[in-house]
Amino acid sequence: MKYPAEPLTELIIELAKLPGIGEKTASRLAFHILRINRKEALNLARSILNVKDKVGFCSICYNLTEADPCQICRNDRRSDEIICVVEEPDDLMAIEKAGQFKGKYHVLQGILSPLDGKGPGDIRIKELLQRINRGGTKEVLFAINPSVEGEATVTYLTNLIKPKNVKVTRIAYGIPMGGDLKYSDQITLIKSMENRREI
Amino acid sequence: MKYPAEPLTELIIELAKLPGIGEKTASRLAFHILRINRKEALNLARSILNVKDKVGFCSICYNLTEADPCQICRNDRRSDEIICVVEEPDDLMAIEKAGQFKGKYHVLQGILSPLDGKGPGDIRIKELLQRINRGGTKEVLFAINPSVEGEATVTYLTNLIKPKNVKVTRIAYGIPMGGDLKYSDQITLIKSMENRREI
Repeated sequence: MKYPAEPLTELIIELAKLPGIGEKTASRLAFHILRINRKEALNLARSILNVKDKVGFCSICYNLTEADPCQICRNDRRSDEIICVVEEPDDLMAIEKAGQFKGKYHVLQGILSPLDGKGPGDIRIKELLQRINRGGTKEVLFAINPSVEGEATVTYLTNLIKPKNVKVTRIAYGIPMGGDLKYSDQITLIKSMENRREI
Repeated sequence: MKYPAEPLTELIIELAKLPGIGEKTASRLAFHILRINRKEALNLARSILNVKDKVGFCSICYNLTEADPCQICRNDRRSDEIICVVEEPDDLMAIEKAGQFKGKYHVLQGILSPLDGKGPGDIRIKELLQRINRGGTKEVLFAINPSVEGEATVTYLTNLIKPKNVKVTRIAYGIPMGGDLKYSDQITLIKSMENRREI
């Protein structure tokens, strides 16, 4: 579509590059930005650059952080003995929101996915093994999304970690709390049967 | 939710102010912005400010424009005799996209809506009447969205324009092309019956 001004067209093109934002939504957002005052637009623009300039990765766990090491790695009240391995920072945040886990984390920043050309060298596997080699780790808990790639990554890493005499565990897959058996998919049901616990 | 870095939290807050973007979408967008390179983020930030700094309103038709008067108002091949009155620039763009209309426009930049405190002084009514008073206009065509406020605005303006010996028309409301009678709402059906044309 032809927009009445070049900067508007450019903004729509830039916004439409964001995930899940098509041209229609981008155009709605652009018209909204046209209507807000300059200060609000400046805040938005500045916060986009700030996040690029001020946020980096923790050199221990590879979570996002402003300070290095990150708050979690610096926290002495959290145990070094258990490392929870996640795929992305959002997964870590979801676990932190639940508020139960009191160990440390390791963010892989991806998952093994040969089809996308992602091999062991492309995610933070070397760094995880180095952490474990330094000693002190008693358990590695995988909190990886259940998918073919997730399973493969867990298997690959388990084979590398087990020989180091470290306990390797993973979160349970099963029927979600409040879920309904009859609406569950078959694979979840099978997993929940396999993972049955004695009561 | 607590995010691992302050700039990330700020970006999510700013993004969540955009219409139709909740915290979850804002967080997904923010993580995307974290992943793209700095140049791409700069382009996005700059295009937000450009749209504020470089886009203004045409002093004749009040459409968005970089140059004043706008391209459409400057175009001699478009007739001055018919002015199509729309609510917002997006409406104008939709009509331009259809590519049939060869007159000029007037963007009201809103609609009469007493409940939202929008009276005749808050939209570009005075400017439309001044254009008509200058002479040369033979027809005013309302392309206003059919709603209670839209109808009221058209009625209000019709009463002001008709005494000036200018023809006043409005776009037809009816069943959309490719539409299906049995799925049409009652009001559209009633309108399409009222607006029937001899064939």
